[in-house]
Amino acid sequence: MNRTVLKGDIVSSESLTEIKTIKNGYICLERGRIVSVSDTLPEEFADAVLYDYSDMLIMQSFCDMHLHAPQYPMLGLGMDLPLVDWLSKYAYPMESRFADPEYARKVYRRLAHDLISHGTTRVAMFSSLHTDSTIVLMEELEKAGITGYVGKVNMDRNGSPILQETTEESKRETLRWLVECSRFTRVKPILTPRFTPSCTDELMRFLGELSRERDLPVQSHISENTSEIEWVKQLRPECEEYWDTYHDSGLWHDRTLMAHCVHSSERERKAIAEYGVTVVHCCNSNTNIASGVMPLRQMLDENLKVVLGSDISGGNTLNGFDVVASTVQTSKVRSIIDNWETDHVNETEAWYLATSAAAPWFGAKAGFAQGNMLHAIVLDDSNLMRKGLSVTERFSRCFYKRQPGSIRAVWSEGEPAYMAD
Amino acid sequence: MNRTVLKGDIVSSESLTEIKTIKNGYICLERGRIVSVSDTLPEEFADAVLYDYSDMLIMQSFCDMHLHAPQYPMLGLGMDLPLVDWLSKYAYPMESRFADPEYARKVYRRLAHDLISHGTTRVAMFSSLHTDSTIVLMEELEKAGITGYVGKVNMDRNGSPILQETTEESKRETLRWLVECSRFTRVKPILTPRFTPSCTDELMRFLGELSRERDLPVQSHISENTSEIEWVKQLRPECEEYWDTYHDSGLWHDRTLMAHCVHSSERERKAIAEYGVTVVHCCNSNTNIASGVMPLRQMLDENLKVVLGSDISGGNTLNGFDVVASTVQTSKVRSIIDNWETDHVNETEAWYLATSAAAPWFGAKAGFAQGNMLHAIVLDDSNLMRKGLSVTERFSRCFYKRQPGSIRAVWSEGEPAYMAD
Repeated sequence: MNRTVLKGDIVSSESLTEIKTIKNGYICLERGRIVSVSDTLPEEFADAVLYDYSDMLIMQSFCDMHLHAPQYPMLGLGMDLPLVDWLSKYAYPMESRFADPEYARKVYRRLAHDLISHGTTRVAMFSSLHTDSTIVLMEELEKAGITGYVGKVNMDRNGSPILQETTEESKRETLRWLVECSRFTRVKPILTPRFTPSCTDELMRFLGELSRERDLPVQSHISENTSEIEWVKQLRPECEEYWDTYHDSGLWHDRTLMAHCVHSSERERKAIAEYGVTVVHCCNSNTNIASGVMPLRQMLDENLKVVLGSDISGGNTLNGFDVVASTVQTSKVRSIIDNWETDHVNETEAWYLATSAAAPWFGAKAGFAQGNMLHAIVLDDSNLMRKGLSVTERFSRCFYKRQPGSIRAVWSEGEPAYMAD
Repeated sequence: MNRTVLKGDIVSSESLTEIKTIKNGYICLERGRIVSVSDTLPEEFADAVLYDYSDMLIMQSFCDMHLHAPQYPMLGLGMDLPLVDWLSKYAYPMESRFADPEYARKVYRRLAHDLISHGTTRVAMFSSLHTDSTIVLMEELEKAGITGYVGKVNMDRNGSPILQETTEESKRETLRWLVECSRFTRVKPILTPRFTPSCTDELMRFLGELSRERDLPVQSHISENTSEIEWVKQLRPECEEYWDTYHDSGLWHDRTLMAHCVHSSERERKAIAEYGVTVVHCCNSNTNIASGVMPLRQMLDENLKVVLGSDISGGNTLNGFDVVASTVQTSKVRSIIDNWETDHVNETEAWYLATSAAAPWFGAKAGFAQGNMLHAIVLDDSNLMRKGLSVTERFSRCFYKRQPGSIRAVWSEGEPAYMAD
């Protein structure tokens, strides 16, 4: 019957404001799918294969909903440069190297390993504009046990001589890439116009049409910084606001991920809510590039769908624990900016955004819900001073304090995808 | 002659804006003291004991100039609570446990190990108000090879029933502690009134007198948050500003470390400069407690002496690399708050504040200067993608990206104090 049980101290994100904890609990799986989560072992699982993680935390794994795979080798470089210099000195030359699928293989294998071993099992990721290397990325993610979305980047204007396609190439390669994608089961294609300044109207409309015809999701960037917003106004004077450029092309709908939204106007935020667009909040990147501090609490209060992204390499870490901690800290900074008149999010809320909030993108429900495939991190905190701490306290602390090697195992799609030595 | 040579890729912080790098360089020591730093091995060191760290970075180790040792076990806990609740629920009960020197031994041994193994070799640290446990802390730091200052905390008002002294006790215990301190060679006493609200005028004056008579340095907190400033105004209405309360008691001079200074007025900043007080910037703590964002760039432009502190456990990490990265990020946030009209600090600058800026507190000069005792971290970044990167790029990146175990060795006072397995 392929029954499996995990035993440990369970933490599940039920809603934005609520975690459920069970000390010495049992997660029961049938073919990787959660059948029950309880504080006693159900009789029908008495003979199941037991993974005994007693005294360790079993928590949901992370969903990283915005990151640039080909920027991984430059992580931490050029953090002092303004955006335009950073792109021309590091990002574009870096991405251009992915014309070589062999180089891509080396980098993407490493990236996939680093993601899974840090507890990220689901992603929405930008590749480069190179079709073959994008396929390599999808292969390496799938091999590592990572689920999610990968997009070949479209970019037919305002790139650099070493990193740009013609409109025709971009269309043709996108279609070729989609054919190749059919062989993957866990990693799916997502249409990826880099952002409005990088794509002609013709290309944007082509992608919008493709999204509609083939029911394909979309990811891009929006309202990251003020000069970018001005630039878009110049490029598309007929559009009242930035979001109109996506909406106008059929790229603004409830299967759209939009990274940043730092400077989204009230009207843009309303359009995000109305069309069911998902905001990907990338606080580390926004700070590193000094873009601004997104009003996260306000956007949650306005019922916008918000998930989190590491946004490497504008972001400086792909570690989901660090991303959650930074999200809390950045939200506190927003409170400071708002003269302490707005509230900040806490670890429970930020972790929800990093996990359950993205569940609908993977056909799943919040938390360790019955019917979900298991996506989990097993965290050993026995080497920390934890006497007398509740599971909730240990959970709150883990975003700030971990020992090297504390991630003992990572489960993805119901299977152990990573086991520490 | 006790001659030693370290070979590797050397990075030295010469001034706020300048690092010096030598690829495949040699640091030559005589009895732990730096004789030369060069790109060829001087002939007179040909027979010296060679530590071959080829292809690894040899950089100065960190000075953590503000942290609370007895708060270490609660690191990462209660980060969501307002300051007063955090103190009453976590910090005061935690600190009160250090009435037991055996408990202190256990925690402080761990803390000392974690500091040295993360590359912090010099500190200015708050203990609790317990004399015996303070001695234990000094013993454990000295055993671990850490140099610096430790203060028995003085606190004779506004504490909690479980954590407070009478004025008489505080005076008597301080004198007893100072007698005990005479046995230490590397770790020295620093007078430590917790902050103005915790100390009666009588106690403050006593400590000020002691500082003058025995030429003892002082550490405390100032202008961390706005309600604290209001509180001090109520407690000391005769003082125009917060700093006057320290100055009035003889605790405001060029051997004074003042943590935070987030909300220091122009007049207070002038008094800091005029009296040569050293500001300890603790950005993580200021963010976690939502105190505010210190105008670091402005204070540097005003020629204030600034060093860095982890401020655990208001701060969430004692890792100096993380503290440097956070200092850069928080400075960028300050630029955002200032509508991008002020500039932020970069890694070179923040690392200077974390290393060379504190050198005068230890009778040392900036960088790997001739005559300095060697304080250094050996960082192995061979496991990262680094092909084609300069030493400077590898240096900039290391604050954001390291692998577990990448600290191969830490040298303190001219000796290897930590060696990775």
